[in-house]
Amino acid sequence: MTREQALEYVRPFLKKERYEHTVRVTDEAIKLAERFGADVKKAETAAALHDYAKYKPRDLMRRWIQEDRRLPKDLLDYHHELWHGPVGALMLEREIGLDDGDVISAISCHTTGRKHMTKLEKVVFLADYIEPGRDFPGVHEVREIAETNLDKACSLALKNTIVFLIRMERTVYPDTFHAYNDLI
Amino acid sequence: MTREQALEYVRPFLKKERYEHTVRVTDEAIKLAERFGADVKKAETAAALHDYAKYKPRDLMRRWIQEDRRLPKDLLDYHHELWHGPVGALMLEREIGLDDGDVISAISCHTTGRKHMTKLEKVVFLADYIEPGRDFPGVHEVREIAETNLDKACSLALKNTIVFLIRMERTVYPDTFHAYNDLI
Repeated sequence: MTREQALEYVRPFLKKERYEHTVRVTDEAIKLAERFGADVKKAETAAALHDYAKYKPRDLMRRWIQEDRRLPKDLLDYHHELWHGPVGALMLEREIGLDDGDVISAISCHTTGRKHMTKLEKVVFLADYIEPGRDFPGVHEVREIAETNLDKACSLALKNTIVFLIRMERTVYPDTFHAYNDLI
Repeated sequence: MTREQALEYVRPFLKKERYEHTVRVTDEAIKLAERFGADVKKAETAAALHDYAKYKPRDLMRRWIQEDRRLPKDLLDYHHELWHGPVGALMLEREIGLDDGDVISAISCHTTGRKHMTKLEKVVFLADYIEPGRDFPGVHEVREIAETNLDKACSLALKNTIVFLIRMERTVYPDTFHAYNDLI
């Protein structure tokens, strides 16, 4: 699957700004993969597809979580914003025959992170966090660290995310703090 | 076991300041138990005994964790500061025949919290956090909330703890996150 094929596949399912974000994440993921020695082609594909399920109806995603035994049921206890990664990955598997486990897992955990992330997973997670369109407190520092240190950049992104969620009095999905604990 | 018996049992194992802290936690736990309808006698006993293992040698605590199947092995992957609660509770069970499961679990999770905390566990956890000798950022607000709302006070204490640990780049024991998620 070429970059263009992947981007064209997701385009009709995304709002314009979300599609533009996707293009930037793809560019960023390629750069990070080159910089840190991850598989560039896989990074490109995973990044281009990562938000595929972003605007899928909540009910549909809930049903996928309930019915696919590979999806952890506890997702349903957490914010629906966390569903599109893991559900999207499996939708793509069914719809376009995506069968690369590395790409599937990178799409799956791009929002939450997880324990023992692979380099590819870190690249996609981080690209989504620092792509040039992002502008939230702390992103500049993460971007700077991402010039040289993938793990440190990811752990700071996770730190910022957890502190943000806690300040907002929102729950934190266990995979996110496992990812944090793992990288600290 | 009377309050005096419990305090006299732990006294020889604690530094002077820690013993004084223990007395204050006991007074605070009694007040909180009365305020929120937890078992006052159990709160008193658990609070008086809660730091029993605080100064036990690290190697000894490590051995207990390795050998007692009731103790979660993942404790060994986290800061040893977290060991004295769960290990102390089981040491007391063996040494003085402490056999009240409610008291044991309140001692056990007084540092980390856990998912689905009982009222007694919350009372001891919170008493340890807000006793009048404590003076760290945020404690005043927690103390104020503890006048009227046990869950809200606990969840703010957990919030503060997690944010503090993350700012210090320290790992966060999963039970602490689970306790937070559960109360939010």
